[in-house]
Amino acid sequence: MSTAGRIADTLQPPYYAVIFTSVRTDVDAGYAEMAAHMLQLAARQPGFLGVESVREGDLGITVSYWDSADALQRWKQDLEHQQAQARGRSQWYSHYKVRVARVERDYGFVKDG
Amino acid sequence: MSTAGRIADTLQPPYYAVIFTSVRTDVDAGYAEMAAHMLQLAARQPGFLGVESVREGDLGITVSYWDSADALQRWKQDLEHQQAQARGRSQWYSHYKVRVARVERDYGFVKDG
Repeated sequence: MSTAGRIADTLQPPYYAVIFTSVRTDVDAGYAEMAAHMLQLAARQPGFLGVESVREGDLGITVSYWDSADALQRWKQDLEHQQAQARGRSQWYSHYKVRVARVERDYGFVKDG
Repeated sequence: MSTAGRIADTLQPPYYAVIFTSVRTDVDAGYAEMAAHMLQLAARQPGFLGVESVREGDLGITVSYWDSADALQRWKQDLEHQQAQARGRSQWYSHYKVRVARVERDYGFVKDG
């Protein structure tokens, strides 16, 4: 994956962001596989714009971007996603916070050369 | 810092989030000091609610939370912050994206016990 590819290439605002900030437990069983699977599953949803995800020790931030409130609502209600969340609460996360936000403006910087 | 303290303890929505996703250069000189100083400076601004920051290799996500659009606008215009941003563009970041978003709802999870 290119370096540039890890910053999501989103549309012109407005669009939606789901900010998922989490603290992991020390239970690793199945976590990496499920995280990768959920990213793949999200990327196939209608209205998905991109995702950025970083973990440093037990603290992680994943931001997914969606073209509408409807799109992220459908993703929230996806059955396989809900099952993954339930397993997350029972095994992988000691706590987390989800924030649903409407992106009003954005701007970027790319270094020359 | 407690584990719980690393997820920002924000107000009831609506409030504002600034999502800063960045890719670092390999220039480290002065970066850690400036990053720490900017977090301290942000925390003293009126309307600052909290910050979450994670870096994994060269990719980082920092989300700061603000109680109003005015508060984050003032922070954007802070002179010392602007000087830090300029130095960031010339030295520390190969690219970044800033997204200003209005948080419409949030929910959380804390494991029992």
